[in-house]
Amino acid sequence: MTASRSWMRALAGDAEVAERLSDAAQVADMLRIEALYAQAAGKAGKLPSDLGDAAAKAIKSVKVDHDRLMRAAAKDGVPVPDLVLQIKEQVPVNLREAIHKGLTSQDVTDTAFVLAAKDILESFETHIETVMVACDDLNTRFGANDLMGRTRMQAALPIKVAHRIAQWRAPFEGHLERLSELRPRLLNIQLAGPVGNGESFDGFAAEIARQMAQELDLAVPQSPWHTRRDGMAELANWLAMITGSLGKIGADLALMAQQGVDEATLKGGGTSSAMAHKSNPVGAEILLALARDTALQQTGMTMAMGHEQERSGSAWTLEWLVMPRMLENTGAALKTTKRLLGDVISLGQPSGIAKL
Amino acid sequence: MTASRSWMRALAGDAEVAERLSDAAQVADMLRIEALYAQAAGKAGKLPSDLGDAAAKAIKSVKVDHDRLMRAAAKDGVPVPDLVLQIKEQVPVNLREAIHKGLTSQDVTDTAFVLAAKDILESFETHIETVMVACDDLNTRFGANDLMGRTRMQAALPIKVAHRIAQWRAPFEGHLERLSELRPRLLNIQLAGPVGNGESFDGFAAEIARQMAQELDLAVPQSPWHTRRDGMAELANWLAMITGSLGKIGADLALMAQQGVDEATLKGGGTSSAMAHKSNPVGAEILLALARDTALQQTGMTMAMGHEQERSGSAWTLEWLVMPRMLENTGAALKTTKRLLGDVISLGQPSGIAKL
Amino acid sequence: MTASRSWMRALAGDAEVAERLSDAAQVADMLRIEALYAQAAGKAGKLPSDLGDAAAKAIKSVKVDHDRLMRAAAKDGVPVPDLVLQIKEQVPVNLREAIHKGLTSQDVTDTAFVLAAKDILESFETHIETVMVACDDLNTRFGANDLMGRTRMQAALPIKVAHRIAQWRAPFEGHLERLSELRPRLLNIQLAGPVGNGESFDGFAAEIARQMAQELDLAVPQSPWHTRRDGMAELANWLAMITGSLGKIGADLALMAQQGVDEATLKGGGTSSAMAHKSNPVGAEILLALARDTALQQTGMTMAMGHEQERSGSAWTLEWLVMPRMLENTGAALKTTKRLLGDVISLGQPSGIAKL
Amino acid sequence: MTASRSWMRALAGDAEVAERLSDAAQVADMLRIEALYAQAAGKAGKLPSDLGDAAAKAIKSVKVDHDRLMRAAAKDGVPVPDLVLQIKEQVPVNLREAIHKGLTSQDVTDTAFVLAAKDILESFETHIETVMVACDDLNTRFGANDLMGRTRMQAALPIKVAHRIAQWRAPFEGHLERLSELRPRLLNIQLAGPVGNGESFDGFAAEIARQMAQELDLAVPQSPWHTRRDGMAELANWLAMITGSLGKIGADLALMAQQGVDEATLKGGGTSSAMAHKSNPVGAEILLALARDTALQQTGMTMAMGHEQERSGSAWTLEWLVMPRMLENTGAALKTTKRLLGDVISLGQPSGIAKL
Repeated sequence: MTASRSWMRALAGDAEVAERLSDAAQVADMLRIEALYAQAAGKAGKLPSDLGDAAAKAIKSVKVDHDRLMRAAAKDGVPVPDLVLQIKEQVPVNLREAIHKGLTSQDVTDTAFVLAAKDILESFETHIETVMVACDDLNTRFGANDLMGRTRMQAALPIKVAHRIAQWRAPFEGHLERLSELRPRLLNIQLAGPVGNGESFDGFAAEIARQMAQELDLAVPQSPWHTRRDGMAELANWLAMITGSLGKIGADLALMAQQGVDEATLKGGGTSSAMAHKSNPVGAEILLALARDTALQQTGMTMAMGHEQERSGSAWTLEWLVMPRMLENTGAALKTTKRLLGDVISLGQPSGIAKL
Repeated sequence: MTASRSWMRALAGDAEVAERLSDAAQVADMLRIEALYAQAAGKAGKLPSDLGDAAAKAIKSVKVDHDRLMRAAAKDGVPVPDLVLQIKEQVPVNLREAIHKGLTSQDVTDTAFVLAAKDILESFETHIETVMVACDDLNTRFGANDLMGRTRMQAALPIKVAHRIAQWRAPFEGHLERLSELRPRLLNIQLAGPVGNGESFDGFAAEIARQMAQELDLAVPQSPWHTRRDGMAELANWLAMITGSLGKIGADLALMAQQGVDEATLKGGGTSSAMAHKSNPVGAEILLALARDTALQQTGMTMAMGHEQERSGSAWTLEWLVMPRMLENTGAALKTTKRLLGDVISLGQPSGIAKL
Repeated sequence: MTASRSWMRALAGDAEVAERLSDAAQVADMLRIEALYAQAAGKAGKLPSDLGDAAAKAIKSVKVDHDRLMRAAAKDGVPVPDLVLQIKEQVPVNLREAIHKGLTSQDVTDTAFVLAAKDILESFETHIETVMVACDDLNTRFGANDLMGRTRMQAALPIKVAHRIAQWRAPFEGHLERLSELRPRLLNIQLAGPVGNGESFDGFAAEIARQMAQELDLAVPQSPWHTRRDGMAELANWLAMITGSLGKIGADLALMAQQGVDEATLKGGGTSSAMAHKSNPVGAEILLALARDTALQQTGMTMAMGHEQERSGSAWTLEWLVMPRMLENTGAALKTTKRLLGDVISLGQPSGIAKL
Repeated sequence: MTASRSWMRALAGDAEVAERLSDAAQVADMLRIEALYAQAAGKAGKLPSDLGDAAAKAIKSVKVDHDRLMRAAAKDGVPVPDLVLQIKEQVPVNLREAIHKGLTSQDVTDTAFVLAAKDILESFETHIETVMVACDDLNTRFGANDLMGRTRMQAALPIKVAHRIAQWRAPFEGHLERLSELRPRLLNIQLAGPVGNGESFDGFAAEIARQMAQELDLAVPQSPWHTRRDGMAELANWLAMITGSLGKIGADLALMAQQGVDEATLKGGGTSSAMAHKSNPVGAEILLALARDTALQQTGMTMAMGHEQERSGSAWTLEWLVMPRMLENTGAALKTTKRLLGDVISLGQPSGIAKL
């Protein structure tokens, strides 16, 4: 219900993700879903076809009272009941029977989230590729330089900078592979009705789902996922792994930039209020903080798999507390990494003997 | 950096806490600290007394450019360096030497947080007392009723409603005790300078700290806490325990309100978009979700105790990611409990024999 | 170093997993790896072929002093240095140069773990299939029964038992798919030498790895994974998802077995020391506890991805603290589920109208 | 149920804690409690006094079949039901009625745990004092040395070694204070009967509790804590804070021992299987791993506060999974720190100018 944000959290936010998950964007997704449902129900034969079309059209011009919606959401635990009420209040009376009938809040909410996740994952894929290209660039510039390899925080044997960069880059190959594997398990329409068994659709569930999925560029799942949240948990795990891999880059750069070690020079460091000579590796530190924070949240999404009976309000709410933060953290970490790698001025030593 | 919020998170927010930790409120705290510092440095003899007073007065009329501050904070990792710059730009040139000299960002940031924590804890203390009174009220109304005692989710032996309510209320006695114990360990001014050893204050550290602490109604700590974060971790643990104890109330009420069990009736339940007969125990579910979410965050604050060397940017950033959420969760949980207990229409059975 | 176990932890252990990760089993794996390495180094041309064969043969008859090994492991942080010493002490002097040369502790330790993980995952795959068959059996027996569908802990609309069982079973289809995807990313030999760049193998790294991988029925990874721990994190995530899905079954059965709800009857329940009439759904409760405990550990494995520089002793140690427990928890949860589903005497109501 | 242990976990174990929580030790505590209960029930007047005394005496000579007990515990979820059965089988028939009557498993189990916790906390207090003395010793030896103060992983300004050591030591003053505060909230007898309301003691609960508590050197709590687990959570939080504070020492020493930084020299480092020149700061790394692992577990204990109704089997089981590990981790971390600080050969630079 709150709008103000602490700067404490602001350092590590991602405006793009926050925008895609904002009330405005998600409610727009929900309206789109309600409209498509009416339309598809009409086409499939659950409703008279022209009634479905008319309802779909009417829904599109609904103006949502967001303040009222949020107040109601806090009471109902989910914004959909009041959203449906607002729709019904604004469409012509004869169309009301075509609104939301057969659907349940979870169908709308989960599908709306998946639409956002789809967009966000596309953006993340691009960011990951950017990070990989940035690694390649660093490798071109500094890969041949020498570096003291360090194991257990102790000088071990000289290596090439290329070797360390390769270990930064390598996991992202796997992460892209995992992304392509998880998408079909996650990017599925939710359409299962009040108790998740699809019976509220009068036998038209499959056809309505097919049409809606096609319009939304989502897939139809093999079974409803009202209480089968493995796709959500898998997404969380993937996000945690991304920030984990970025955290290693941050840890390495912070260590390399230490005076005495002097294996990395960074521009654009943070200034100090008291020490004019300092240039702090703030980006590297934020990556570490984001990796840890995201790892914490992951546990919450796994716990939310314990979705009891036909719908767990507590597990579902926990998802909403945890997932937006994981997504925003990951976006912030990807962008921070891109900036940080771009700020690298030197890595290792050009001379033949690594500094010990 | 982001302002928009997802409804997902909005259900469980607390506007009061969010406001107290907002950029506006925390920057105002920081300005107050900078002004008090100049004044105290003057009184203590570190600065000419009239210079300190003039600087303090000038700082009070500084108008902060918040957008610029947030951009700089993202680069510097903390808003103070740019805040000091903005102050210096706005005060008369001759006062600049009296601004922030000897201080470091952490002195200002940590003290500003403690000021917010002090207010928030006072508010929480009141909310806890309200929850305890609500338990007493329920006990007066329903304590004599019968209830089937249940252990390991199975009917055990009949008990009185009073017994269950007593277990809800009892931990808050302990929590208030813990609060009084943690306050002197937490509510301490931070004044230690760039590397935390107080040497930047030219021998006036103790006197400046004494004066500032008095003005701010904080204590002077036995030693600087730049990297000694046990007070912060203790606060986090206390918050997690509060939400944990409230989570038990939520769990019990959700179980009691089940059809078939029928041990609690609640008004004001959440409505369903599909099932008009439903009245969902949304408040109880939110308590469960908040208890779990807060317990996750707690780990982050303990990890942030590993504050390496004289200041850890990553540990400090992690605190900022985690702590505001813990505070807001706790505020939300306390208020949700108050509402939920107020919505109780009945508990247990008035008849002599508990329902099995 | 400790051998005694508290009954506290014993309730939820898995002897099979514990045995496969025991000192005895893992040290045997390590000896096998050392022997194979000598042999492959000989065949590949890094060593004289007969020297490699002789060393391999001699290693096989080494008798390890386990107490000494554990004492040394506590000091070295890993048992391999002393294991190599023990081998060298026991083989003929002329073979010493063929022992472990080019290898590093991490090559041996990580590969030994992967060998154990391979066996354990095969066992888990079988257990998962058993759980799915148990769901099918329950469906055959009770699927047609009626049940009150419950959402947000409130009676919603009647469903068939088949629907709830389907939601229990469905995620395991996905989990088996994920298992087949993660195996090639995890079940890889580790062979990279002291600083992970393979240079210690005199140009024979690829050939030695190929031979060893073939013998061990593992794959050769695209790049060393000394500090690229995404495969380990992915395993952890998979384990957490398994226990999460089993936790839902536990939560549902505990709720269904409540008096008043009466939707499940279980035999073989736990007895009470004080209440002779009780039959506690202990298995269901253990599933919930294991789901939560495993979810906690998952965060540790993601944090261990921050494997700094060329080897992180702290991240590696954290893996060892966390991973055995995750594996043992998962094994225990799978077996507990099998038993619990076998103990189901009835689900739902045979009559036409579900009990409300 | 399993006895074998992986070396993976063994590095970071604590034999003393493991022994105190072993089956043997905890079952001995339980027998002691059962005997004291019979005796106190006799003295208080709930039983004929000589019957109580005779039963107490008989219980003391019971020989427990541990294998049977563990098998039964796995089924019952707690060992007490079978322990009571074993006692009844071994005492003369006429004493059976004096055995465990009025008690419940939780009374025995919780009190037995508290007895172990009491001993372990005494030992930890001594270990903490030892760590503080070790800090004082280091300070005497090296406190006057120079060190480059480092903030955000960057050289800041020179400090004295004494300043860094002071920040290591300072939190333990607070931790000892917290220990003295938590003891009266934790070290309480549990005596509340099957549903936790004390009604099974025929009006003699207060007197029996008083006598037992006196014998066991525990306190009588203000109210039963069957489902009020704040004392347990507080203990967990304290343990996590201890390991968190020790983790900072580990982090600092690992950073100080880096080549190039060269601010600490340690003896007794870990050897490498491949690099003879290395001396790894294994103890410091273990401290970091233990700090993280313990922080993870803490969340579990907070979650276990959601102890539903009159006894939660799942929350209670979760406590048993988590708490022994937290205690053993803390013991291991304290002992590792003592060793590590003893292995310090030098800190900082004796010369007037700190190395940058």
